[in-house]
Amino acid sequence: MLDCAIIGGGPAGLTAGLYTTRGGLKNVTMFEMGLPGGQITGSSEIENYPGFFDYTKTGMDFMDSWQEQCFSFGLKHEMKRVEHISKTGEHFTITVEGGESYEALTVIVATGSTPKRAGFKGEDEFFGKGVSTCATCDGFFYKDKPVTVLGGGDTALEEAFYLSNICSDVYVVHRRDEFRTAPPTLDRVKRKDNIHLITDSVIEEAYGGVMGLEGVKIKNLKSDEVTEMPNSGLFVFVGHNVNNSVLKDKNGKFICAVNDWGQVIVDLNMRTDVEGLFVAGDIRIQAPKQVVSAAGDGAVAGLQVISYIQELC
Amino acid sequence: MLDCAIIGGGPAGLTAGLYTTRGGLKNVTMFEMGLPGGQITGSSEIENYPGFFDYTKTGMDFMDSWQEQCFSFGLKHEMKRVEHISKTGEHFTITVEGGESYEALTVIVATGSTPKRAGFKGEDEFFGKGVSTCATCDGFFYKDKPVTVLGGGDTALEEAFYLSNICSDVYVVHRRDEFRTAPPTLDRVKRKDNIHLITDSVIEEAYGGVMGLEGVKIKNLKSDEVTEMPNSGLFVFVGHNVNNSVLKDKNGKFICAVNDWGQVIVDLNMRTDVEGLFVAGDIRIQAPKQVVSAAGDGAVAGLQVISYIQELC
Repeated sequence: MLDCAIIGGGPAGLTAGLYTTRGGLKNVTMFEMGLPGGQITGSSEIENYPGFFDYTKTGMDFMDSWQEQCFSFGLKHEMKRVEHISKTGEHFTITVEGGESYEALTVIVATGSTPKRAGFKGEDEFFGKGVSTCATCDGFFYKDKPVTVLGGGDTALEEAFYLSNICSDVYVVHRRDEFRTAPPTLDRVKRKDNIHLITDSVIEEAYGGVMGLEGVKIKNLKSDEVTEMPNSGLFVFVGHNVNNSVLKDKNGKFICAVNDWGQVIVDLNMRTDVEGLFVAGDIRIQAPKQVVSAAGDGAVAGLQVISYIQELC
Repeated sequence: MLDCAIIGGGPAGLTAGLYTTRGGLKNVTMFEMGLPGGQITGSSEIENYPGFFDYTKTGMDFMDSWQEQCFSFGLKHEMKRVEHISKTGEHFTITVEGGESYEALTVIVATGSTPKRAGFKGEDEFFGKGVSTCATCDGFFYKDKPVTVLGGGDTALEEAFYLSNICSDVYVVHRRDEFRTAPPTLDRVKRKDNIHLITDSVIEEAYGGVMGLEGVKIKNLKSDEVTEMPNSGLFVFVGHNVNNSVLKDKNGKFICAVNDWGQVIVDLNMRTDVEGLFVAGDIRIQAPKQVVSAAGDGAVAGLQVISYIQELC
């Protein structure tokens, strides 16, 4: 019987592992199929994680030091894909690919969310080298420079507004002629002189070289005309997939409360509505999608697991 | 008019400063009387802040790199003690010592809380060198070693329980013969073989040398007998003062909702019940009192301030 099963090995899962094991739990396993580290390992520079101020290091370097630290207190790692979690009586069953299962007193789900890709040429090639899905993370790298934004929903326009306070010009490319956003948001964006809306258009290609993105080709869907935009920053906001499938039972029903977007509902202690089940990081409601906040969540969830187990004694 | 006034310069305040300025706000001032850094600057070792894995560095070294980073995006620092904050119409007035005042569109209060001192001989001398007020932070440094705990409330016994999973023995010293705690907590503590309750007693002295604490002298208040306990770790849990005085008006009434302990009530977005007023870190309800969580709060509050100001436009 595990004291705690942690599902996911990004900043939230790793920090939960650090706090549970350093707090004295002997039997904690993190389930993560890939290399622990999470989305941030795809970043080439990080400057908004407090205390990490060495810009010559990449996201991969950054998470390397986390791993050494988070595993140093006895956290175990299973490279297995979790299929689903269920609770029977007082404890949880974690079923992994192939049908094998583990029992656990508590579970912390930290599987995050995955930004959707738009599918244009060069998107994967320049991801993390000019193509970004996070204005808060990467906007500052384009201070006083022009950038392109792809998307027409609330997030795209809010992020365009955020970028407009940092960048010289923000070109918002949207495939339709109308925006799917609240009228006040659109009004606000229209009042900003340095936000330019390019409707009925798609990104056909992101191009560049070894140093990263150099520009984008924008195609007007009505005229078929292609315009080159030599911006070295492109922000793609076409939605997120919340990685919540482990929380669905065999009938596809969630085992805990989620909102309309499938984000897990939590309180300030990262508790779900199922006793002993906690979540941390981008899978939860109102997640700011920042490494430091995900790590903060992981610490809280880890400490709550320890208290919860103490109360079972 | 400031875009944002940040009150307090610990991990929460500094991170809020990083996020607001890096997010494009031009006019952000942090009010902090002392050296920025917060409580953690008093620690001699840190091993639970993810990514910071150099145990030769002290809390002061640790916060040095934060400061450089958090001030690098334009955050300003005023070394002034804030007396109180008030809101008139749409904006806030920050009144500092001497009567001078500043206007701000938004405020983030991150003044933290201060553990109370018990007042025995050697307490200040060995604080951060064996005397601690945080089991989560420092318990692991005494893995498989005996430690002493001072206090008789819920926190003292919960922290004793936390320590009992890490340390060989936990000696709880309490001045009365009864504990002020919930009966199940006390039952749980009594069932733990390695927790030893020493009632009717106080710590008379903490003693040691240049390497830190070496032991404590415990005095029985009924017999006046003094026992030496050669434990190199002493945890003091005699309460916290929440640093919320800036949130009181001239009549001593809080300008936002607080709980019975004076902790500010917030939601997951660090919003108080006053529009434009946010808090972060140990001043809020259910704060886990960890650097990484306070920093996570600061990031959230900073991003919320940016959104709030966007909506004013």
